[in-house]
Amino acid sequence: MEKLFVIKIGGNVIDSEENLSSFLSAFASINAKKILIHGGGKIATKIGDQLGVASKYINGRRITDDDTIDIVTMVYGGLVNKKIVAQLQAKNCNAIGLTGADANLIPAIKRPVKEIDYGWVGDVESSRFPVSSFQLFLENNMVPVFASLTHDGEGHILNTNADTIASSIAVALSAVYDVRLIYCFERKGVLENVDVADSVINLITKEKYKQLLAEEKLFAGIIPKIDNAFAAIDAGVKEVLIGDAKDLLQNTTTQTLGTLIK
Amino acid sequence: MEKLFVIKIGGNVIDSEENLSSFLSAFASINAKKILIHGGGKIATKIGDQLGVASKYINGRRITDDDTIDIVTMVYGGLVNKKIVAQLQAKNCNAIGLTGADANLIPAIKRPVKEIDYGWVGDVESSRFPVSSFQLFLENNMVPVFASLTHDGEGHILNTNADTIASSIAVALSAVYDVRLIYCFERKGVLENVDVADSVINLITKEKYKQLLAEEKLFAGIIPKIDNAFAAIDAGVKEVLIGDAKDLLQNTTTQTLGTLIK
Repeated sequence: MEKLFVIKIGGNVIDSEENLSSFLSAFASINAKKILIHGGGKIATKIGDQLGVASKYINGRRITDDDTIDIVTMVYGGLVNKKIVAQLQAKNCNAIGLTGADANLIPAIKRPVKEIDYGWVGDVESSRFPVSSFQLFLENNMVPVFASLTHDGEGHILNTNADTIASSIAVALSAVYDVRLIYCFERKGVLENVDVADSVINLITKEKYKQLLAEEKLFAGIIPKIDNAFAAIDAGVKEVLIGDAKDLLQNTTTQTLGTLIK
Repeated sequence: MEKLFVIKIGGNVIDSEENLSSFLSAFASINAKKILIHGGGKIATKIGDQLGVASKYINGRRITDDDTIDIVTMVYGGLVNKKIVAQLQAKNCNAIGLTGADANLIPAIKRPVKEIDYGWVGDVESSRFPVSSFQLFLENNMVPVFASLTHDGEGHILNTNADTIASSIAVALSAVYDVRLIYCFERKGVLENVDVADSVINLITKEKYKQLLAEEKLFAGIIPKIDNAFAAIDAGVKEVLIGDAKDLLQNTTTQTLGTLIK
């Protein structure tokens, strides 16, 4: 099967013009099929503050109310997405900016209200992915760039976790491509010692992961990412790479920096 | 050739939730290939004001500076575009929200600086239209929904006249489809007497247009629209319809309300 890179970037790439530009150059130069998924970074919070819309939390969980969904739709789906697209086009990468609502590419439902009403938040419905629509873009030399937004099929945009969108796309497309899923984040990879930036664990197998959990070496924030990664691998993704954008993209075809999960 | 509707809506449709919803229902029910083009309406000005970015003018001409292009990118390309897409999806219309930057669908250049520097404003380069990319969407049951934004190929988004985008798309696609171009606006059509809302001229031919100009009956604002319409017809578009959204879409296949230009 042909190779496909599914790459997710977050705030640490998006919030710095310099980081974003160098990431996009590296991304544009990947000589294979590829899909980019991004969130919105700090700019959404900044514009929310300017518009007098404060971030809302219940029991420490972020809530997406009516005003907030409008802001993330503007910022993620408009400002950030179209800036990325324009910059990729300038780098000869035929980007097309999308959300999960567009062509109904990412089926989702509004998160059911249990203890907490998260508001306009989406849960991806992985089983209903329109693989052939993705192929239509990829086989016609288009590079999908997704903002982390979906819709409920009833006319509402939903704020949706970008990591989950990335793994769902990766899993769905592993039926037709040889998928490498890459999470770019603020560290060089999964760290053996969270206080030592270079203590990257280069390879995590299931065995190794059990051992790391038993030794309580992993910091809490990384555990959902690794669980997510193994879930993706169990569902067909060939391998998952976690680490710093610069390291990962310079080495997609040769030696591996960051943490490889397989 | 197969029929294609290219429909442009402006502020009078976008600024009212009720108008927009009823327009989108009518649009969704058109049983033919179709493309929608929209601007941003008053919401862009409102959000600009809230963010402390005032509209700027030089000699009465609107200027798109750095702050303004960010706002229109957010509002046109994000908020308005994705809301329309989500609502159309809910009405079983497989909308895909786009700008001219996406897949480089609308080639444009930054308007050259002569007497006035308009800032980040785009002029469409009609001759370079990627007709086959449009066909890819249309032939695969996708309905393109364009925000009135293009890009300069150098990484910048450009604010671009929605009427011009609509006529440029209509002209380019008239090579492969039988195109009807529809401008929805705040009047019922071109009026014989601008003070009488019902004095719609139902048909304007070139002869009739010369006569109307000679009689100085037309109000100034409509003249560029009619010139634009005849330019589109001379370039291959089958007919142009101008009028109120409700009238036009209820009658796309039968009797004509509004003003037909051919």
